[in-house]
Amino acid sequence: MSGPFAPGRLLLGGDWSPEQWDPATWDEDVELLREVRANTVSLGIFSWSTLEPEEGRFETAWLDEVLDRLDGAGIGYFLSTPTASPPPWFSLAHPDALPVRPDGVRLTHGSRDTYAVSAPAYREASRRIARLLGERYGDRPGLRGWHLHNEYGTLDHGPHAARAFRAWLRARYGTIEALNRAWCTAFWSQGYSSFAEVEPPRATQYLPNPSQAIDFRRFSSDEMRAALREQREEIRAAGSQAPVTTNYMLPTWNHLEQWSWADELDVVSLDHYLDTAGPDAEAHVAYGSDLARSWSGGPWVLMEQNATGIKVDGRTLAKSPERMLRHSLGYIARGSQSSLFFQWRQSTGGAEQWHGALVPHAGRDSRAFRGVRRLGEVLESLAPVAALPEEGPLVEAEVGLLWHADGWWALETPDLPSAQLRYGEEQRATHRSFHRAGIPTDFVRPLADVSRYRLLVLTCQYPLSDAEVTWLEEYVEGGGHLVVTYLSGLADEHLHVATGGYPGRLRELLGVRGEEILPLPAREVVTLDDGTVAEEWTELLAATDAEVLARYTHADLAGLPAITRARRGAGTATYVSARWTQESRDTWLRAAAQELGIGPTLPGAAERGLEAVRRRGHGVDHLFLLHHGDRTVRVQAEGTDLVSGAAAAQGLAVPAGGVAVLSLPPGTAARLLP
Amino acid sequence: MSGPFAPGRLLLGGDWSPEQWDPATWDEDVELLREVRANTVSLGIFSWSTLEPEEGRFETAWLDEVLDRLDGAGIGYFLSTPTASPPPWFSLAHPDALPVRPDGVRLTHGSRDTYAVSAPAYREASRRIARLLGERYGDRPGLRGWHLHNEYGTLDHGPHAARAFRAWLRARYGTIEALNRAWCTAFWSQGYSSFAEVEPPRATQYLPNPSQAIDFRRFSSDEMRAALREQREEIRAAGSQAPVTTNYMLPTWNHLEQWSWADELDVVSLDHYLDTAGPDAEAHVAYGSDLARSWSGGPWVLMEQNATGIKVDGRTLAKSPERMLRHSLGYIARGSQSSLFFQWRQSTGGAEQWHGALVPHAGRDSRAFRGVRRLGEVLESLAPVAALPEEGPLVEAEVGLLWHADGWWALETPDLPSAQLRYGEEQRATHRSFHRAGIPTDFVRPLADVSRYRLLVLTCQYPLSDAEVTWLEEYVEGGGHLVVTYLSGLADEHLHVATGGYPGRLRELLGVRGEEILPLPAREVVTLDDGTVAEEWTELLAATDAEVLARYTHADLAGLPAITRARRGAGTATYVSARWTQESRDTWLRAAAQELGIGPTLPGAAERGLEAVRRRGHGVDHLFLLHHGDRTVRVQAEGTDLVSGAAAAQGLAVPAGGVAVLSLPPGTAARLLP
Amino acid sequence: MSGPFAPGRLLLGGDWSPEQWDPATWDEDVELLREVRANTVSLGIFSWSTLEPEEGRFETAWLDEVLDRLDGAGIGYFLSTPTASPPPWFSLAHPDALPVRPDGVRLTHGSRDTYAVSAPAYREASRRIARLLGERYGDRPGLRGWHLHNEYGTLDHGPHAARAFRAWLRARYGTIEALNRAWCTAFWSQGYSSFAEVEPPRATQYLPNPSQAIDFRRFSSDEMRAALREQREEIRAAGSQAPVTTNYMLPTWNHLEQWSWADELDVVSLDHYLDTAGPDAEAHVAYGSDLARSWSGGPWVLMEQNATGIKVDGRTLAKSPERMLRHSLGYIARGSQSSLFFQWRQSTGGAEQWHGALVPHAGRDSRAFRGVRRLGEVLESLAPVAALPEEGPLVEAEVGLLWHADGWWALETPDLPSAQLRYGEEQRATHRSFHRAGIPTDFVRPLADVSRYRLLVLTCQYPLSDAEVTWLEEYVEGGGHLVVTYLSGLADEHLHVATGGYPGRLRELLGVRGEEILPLPAREVVTLDDGTVAEEWTELLAATDAEVLARYTHADLAGLPAITRARRGAGTATYVSARWTQESRDTWLRAAAQELGIGPTLPGAAERGLEAVRRRGHGVDHLFLLHHGDRTVRVQAEGTDLVSGAAAAQGLAVPAGGVAVLSLPPGTAARLLP
Repeated sequence: MSGPFAPGRLLLGGDWSPEQWDPATWDEDVELLREVRANTVSLGIFSWSTLEPEEGRFETAWLDEVLDRLDGAGIGYFLSTPTASPPPWFSLAHPDALPVRPDGVRLTHGSRDTYAVSAPAYREASRRIARLLGERYGDRPGLRGWHLHNEYGTLDHGPHAARAFRAWLRARYGTIEALNRAWCTAFWSQGYSSFAEVEPPRATQYLPNPSQAIDFRRFSSDEMRAALREQREEIRAAGSQAPVTTNYMLPTWNHLEQWSWADELDVVSLDHYLDTAGPDAEAHVAYGSDLARSWSGGPWVLMEQNATGIKVDGRTLAKSPERMLRHSLGYIARGSQSSLFFQWRQSTGGAEQWHGALVPHAGRDSRAFRGVRRLGEVLESLAPVAALPEEGPLVEAEVGLLWHADGWWALETPDLPSAQLRYGEEQRATHRSFHRAGIPTDFVRPLADVSRYRLLVLTCQYPLSDAEVTWLEEYVEGGGHLVVTYLSGLADEHLHVATGGYPGRLRELLGVRGEEILPLPAREVVTLDDGTVAEEWTELLAATDAEVLARYTHADLAGLPAITRARRGAGTATYVSARWTQESRDTWLRAAAQELGIGPTLPGAAERGLEAVRRRGHGVDHLFLLHHGDRTVRVQAEGTDLVSGAAAAQGLAVPAGGVAVLSLPPGTAARLLP
Repeated sequence: MSGPFAPGRLLLGGDWSPEQWDPATWDEDVELLREVRANTVSLGIFSWSTLEPEEGRFETAWLDEVLDRLDGAGIGYFLSTPTASPPPWFSLAHPDALPVRPDGVRLTHGSRDTYAVSAPAYREASRRIARLLGERYGDRPGLRGWHLHNEYGTLDHGPHAARAFRAWLRARYGTIEALNRAWCTAFWSQGYSSFAEVEPPRATQYLPNPSQAIDFRRFSSDEMRAALREQREEIRAAGSQAPVTTNYMLPTWNHLEQWSWADELDVVSLDHYLDTAGPDAEAHVAYGSDLARSWSGGPWVLMEQNATGIKVDGRTLAKSPERMLRHSLGYIARGSQSSLFFQWRQSTGGAEQWHGALVPHAGRDSRAFRGVRRLGEVLESLAPVAALPEEGPLVEAEVGLLWHADGWWALETPDLPSAQLRYGEEQRATHRSFHRAGIPTDFVRPLADVSRYRLLVLTCQYPLSDAEVTWLEEYVEGGGHLVVTYLSGLADEHLHVATGGYPGRLRELLGVRGEEILPLPAREVVTLDDGTVAEEWTELLAATDAEVLARYTHADLAGLPAITRARRGAGTATYVSARWTQESRDTWLRAAAQELGIGPTLPGAAERGLEAVRRRGHGVDHLFLLHHGDRTVRVQAEGTDLVSGAAAAQGLAVPAGGVAVLSLPPGTAARLLP
Repeated sequence: MSGPFAPGRLLLGGDWSPEQWDPATWDEDVELLREVRANTVSLGIFSWSTLEPEEGRFETAWLDEVLDRLDGAGIGYFLSTPTASPPPWFSLAHPDALPVRPDGVRLTHGSRDTYAVSAPAYREASRRIARLLGERYGDRPGLRGWHLHNEYGTLDHGPHAARAFRAWLRARYGTIEALNRAWCTAFWSQGYSSFAEVEPPRATQYLPNPSQAIDFRRFSSDEMRAALREQREEIRAAGSQAPVTTNYMLPTWNHLEQWSWADELDVVSLDHYLDTAGPDAEAHVAYGSDLARSWSGGPWVLMEQNATGIKVDGRTLAKSPERMLRHSLGYIARGSQSSLFFQWRQSTGGAEQWHGALVPHAGRDSRAFRGVRRLGEVLESLAPVAALPEEGPLVEAEVGLLWHADGWWALETPDLPSAQLRYGEEQRATHRSFHRAGIPTDFVRPLADVSRYRLLVLTCQYPLSDAEVTWLEEYVEGGGHLVVTYLSGLADEHLHVATGGYPGRLRELLGVRGEEILPLPAREVVTLDDGTVAEEWTELLAATDAEVLARYTHADLAGLPAITRARRGAGTATYVSARWTQESRDTWLRAAAQELGIGPTLPGAAERGLEAVRRRGHGVDHLFLLHHGDRTVRVQAEGTDLVSGAAAAQGLAVPAGGVAVLSLPPGTAARLLP
């Protein structure tokens, strides 16, 4: 792998589909790209049927021509392997390579993403076209990187998947006896006498086996990762050294174990679509950004956002140009080297013709396009931001939040004490609290070095392996402050519940012992004796070796511990057995941080709607000020606003809805004027 | 085709299923039919398994006997081809002729309507039985008409459909390149290299191609129409000249392009089922009637209504005899030559044994049956109504509302700016406004002669062809007044969005240019500066060559145009970019009509719950007065009430819930007394 | 069959899965079982893959060892045939023996219950393993009984089911003509020309045939019963004379016709899972208990309840130890010889690892386990309760409630006048009223001897056969008091509606004649002139030969009869045409009982939250006092509390949440002290 992704400027542009347009439009597009100072497009994502209109017959002249135009105009590009969307001919030639649903229905072409990732015919066709692109375009000057596939995530339950799943299981467990133990197949008479009897989860009469379910998710991630790796190898074998990425998806599309995928990539890229047009949209931008930066281990690429719309309940609500600008800077403030969009020019046909774009249906003369031009100007003024610090992180965070796809998949298994808690929502709730407090956070990979975090939070991390438990113990012993919530540490990596008291995997570390998990009825809330309000989840808990920070006050649980803290070595381990409401979570986590001396990037800002994020640069800090509030604020610092060119030493006014990016000497303080 | 359908009297009766009953019941039925003065039954709709109990073995003696009885009693009949419901033996003999769902599941017998319309075996069996019926019964004296099939609408996605779809596409597009362009297959790598690769919409991984989706709906309509035509040809070849019809369905069952189907028929018939027992039921009767009369191009046949019930949310709510009478006259007032019902005698077994009927389970001694007797008396007194005017329309309307099935199907494609707007609901909303104002309306076929309409309204007519655009321009130039709402004219007939500003197909005519479509969040309303209240849909709009009638007042759109009017030649073209609430729609459209001098049939009536509809007859007008309100009203006119025989010259009292039908010299005025 | 089930003590224990644990845990389990005075486990329910890991290779040594341990410790056991959950090898060896859904999807292993009950391979494998267990363990001293299969209920729609369904139909109807009549196949052209054309309900285009639907449910019950019978015969052929049972399921899982199944069993057992954690949970315990005792015709076995949780809306809510104790006694008070649980030791893996258990994840040191220990003490003190009276019922009830699975299945057929009413909910509503009044009830089998009941209630008993009608007539003639609600007696056993007036099957007996059924719109209520409030269902009714007890007051129905009573011979027949709200149902039924001199077991108790149930014993009565209220009550009687040993002659205090069981001379009165 090459070094961190540093293209020397901030990238602006989007997915471009020249195959949908004629050469005259190509010319116009190049002109418009230059007009808005765009410098990057993503190409080829859905070009398979154009590049290979019949099996084995390749047509690349059009792409040569397109790239020539881009090179000529000084516009860079990510080149995609088109393997996410096999053409119709592929369905007919290789029906066995189509994906199969759990109920046995074999999907077919007519949309996108109809591939069975384990099918040899699919893998071979994918390698072939990756090699072709690598050989033909791998040393193009404008090539910013390889965008392998698109949004991996088609799960297949068919015969090819079954075969590959069995091989994966054999590698994981060695013997069928070990699998039987790991899956607890003695329950419900599921004992296998050989690997040949094991299937992917299929339509069955009642609840599936949870260990099988999570292993199938892990297998699917690994299998798609193997496909990705093959493509990367073809590209490299063709001699191309350009950075390799693939685009992850959030918030609801979680089919990859993101950390191990990042190991295969030079840089992580993210497609990020908001799910609310309310004030939480900004928190969501921060959440996606912090995840992507953490996964990537530094700079990352925002590969897609929507230029003008936010889809909620079947309605595409407005994203104004001002908000789009603030969001773009929100991503960049947290490490993105780009603000890229799906897509450059709005399609006039096809399923996503109403998806927002930089060149909307209305064309150049439009609020949206003017907004893009403004973005281009701003990003040009922010060019210095793209340079990376010589050492240390892009964003300094003292708070780490554990993330692992296993946690997500575990919470999708059936018949947990409550089916109401979703992993993604729970992570977002905790992240939102820190975001509302203006406190920067990283997401953390299990077993990673977490010594730099003063506070580490585990939210609903249901399964933990032995190594992970030891790692947490060592963190605390070494002086770390760990906060663990409800629904964490209950099971091992096979989803076997640890016995003897909840949460079994962390009982000793936390100094507590839970006897029963007691979800609350819908809409019922209870108040702890410290004023904290809880909903959905409580526990019958004893503090065996911990101080009690808050106690339940209701019914059966009155007087029993709800929140505890154990001292271990130089650190502390706090357990929160009740699910906070969002407001209580905000209050509690802010106070917990404060107690450790962890404060916001710019004190007083968040309360006034001003988002402040400090991105470290090459010998300089950049303090991003994104004002989502409705009254002008004034910020004082020894630096200059790169956007307006104004000095901030006497105070810089940031109007409602406005942005500023202060260039500051590293570590220099800023303060909000009254 | 023969002339307009004029059976010489108003038809009363219903679907009759003698195959469910013994001859003694047949005799009783004939007696009861005569008792209520019924003159028409529909026969044979579900008789296939009785007529052809084994493939090729026909049993018609029972039907001969039934028809002899009816002829003997002077009761007419529609005779149906039974092809909507193939018998069980058909499933076994021709499994390939069963319909296939998008997910590949092949449906089988056990209900009704299990046929693959493109299957040769089905078509052949259908022709054979149509020919048999035509030959055997085509010159029966009591034959009022042929009722071909029943409620066409089974969509098939199987191999026969695929073959026929490909042939249809080849005829439509000629080359696969043309299809690729029309379907914008460059998006998502859907490019076809031959027609052989094209499939009906099938289960796939994500959103379907919208152009494919609408073409499949068009194909399915055309394919079923071809099946209908074959049956008609068999009937005609057998020498029968009786009128031919088939029964359409509304409000939610929209599988036919109604205008082109009407071209094949001598008269359109309608099965009409209400979906509310509230006051909107009456508006729904008017809506169904206006559609049917418009489709039929004059008189039509109400083939089915429910005698006693209205099904809402799984409950069959009451339809009282008085209401049933008012509804029956509501259909007739708007051109129906009949009040027919499903069904004559309530079944005691089978899936619809609880469906309302003229002879209910309780039998002759029942409120329901007495209500039918009353209806029979009233319809007999209204016999003159059935005669047709020598020229001109049955109902004179100055307002035309565009209707096209394409609009319905287009709004069912995925990922429009809002998935909340349904074509049928939107048409009903506009029609309801005129109905509430007491103003008669026609529905209009695209490209039809619309010169007689002073006001033409396009509601959510998303796709428009070039010819349709020209047609609208000519209408306005020639002095017409056009009102176009949101979600109209955005795309061409392939559902390609027209670029350069919304609504792209009508931008010039309307003198506006929209930049963005901005659906409102759920439950949010905004008020325009003229007091109009809008919900669900707004637009970022400029008036490029039009007067602004109303402006937005909220947030981003404050001060921008919401409703505009352009003068073009002798007419005007109004654009309403915001979706009215029903109340604002009522107010606005009533005022727009008033401005053009278009008023209600009987001023002041609608406000008091009195529905007034003028049906033109042979040298006479019939003013239907249907009183849904709760206080007696008095109407004065130079005519006589056919129902009561009373003269109205000094004022006729219509009591709450009552009806009257004034026979008036053509064009004579009536007025409401205070 | 042997005599009533009288194991000589009350059984305590639960499902035990030694196959999930190692021998050391077995030892610990035996110790813990003894600690809590448990005396019974259920074994082998899901052991097929352990007992027969490959087809035909049996491994029983582990089970021998387990049973030796139990015998050694004096702990009894139910031994299960493991046929509910075939192992994976079975799917591979016999794919044709997997169940098929109506849409044709064949389910496979990966959960439990994947068997096609009509498949010869499945039946043969089931017989083989039943015989093996019978031979090997049939004379074990600790064997309390055979627990055949588990929760029968997998419906199969595949080819084996089709073949067996046809044979069942041929036996039922003799000729295809008779089937055609019974199913009213003349409707919708469904006439069959041979049995070969008949299928189980499959995916079809529209509504299924209701007669086919209910016959398929009856067939499925009979077919599973035949499988049960085969297992029983193998057991008996192997020489074992231990009692035979199988476990029924409620409240929502109703795949068996319970009465005819009871004919095959020595004792009925029930798995009972609550669906609310509110106060209705106690009413639900009573409902399940009364059903089970009635089905069993005396003592029965509570085979499963949840020790600690109640699952509602995806959340497992708390069942406190005190409540669990009261529930356990609630079951026993109403005839259960046991309080058994799913399961003994909580699993650490598998789909139900979070299901409550007697030994929870937390282990011995837990509130839950202490609760079990307390239960063990109480049950030991109640040992005398297990003895049966020499004659007469266990619980004396003067109120009988008709129950028949046909009624349940009938209300699941499509397109009834209202789809809102569910059989189970309606039965529960009526039972709840008596429970709230403290009045004991039995459920009654059609055609059974009901002479001992002063009051017999039919709630929503939609189909009635000729014999059932005669039976009801004779009951009333003989002095019985019959109450019949809406939705009863409308159809015969083929679901053919009886004509001439509703409810056609009971019109003469009730002396009423209904003309129309008029469901109310959602959330609309109407008040009768006696103050009764009704919702969902009203009727247009005449009293032809009955007194009117209450009349409608609203709209169309004002002044018409709503509730009527006819005198017939020595008894009365009351018809309630409106669906009571629960509160009105409570008031009305309590008054109706009072009028007949039927009062609560302990007057005044229910109002204070004290549940009082008298279970007759061997020469003694046991008055169970279960206090669900929140204030201490005092009860006076000439007896002793078996739980505390205290005498009640001067009044016994039962604290909030507490229990007492008074041993009283037969028939002795008890009274509540003020």
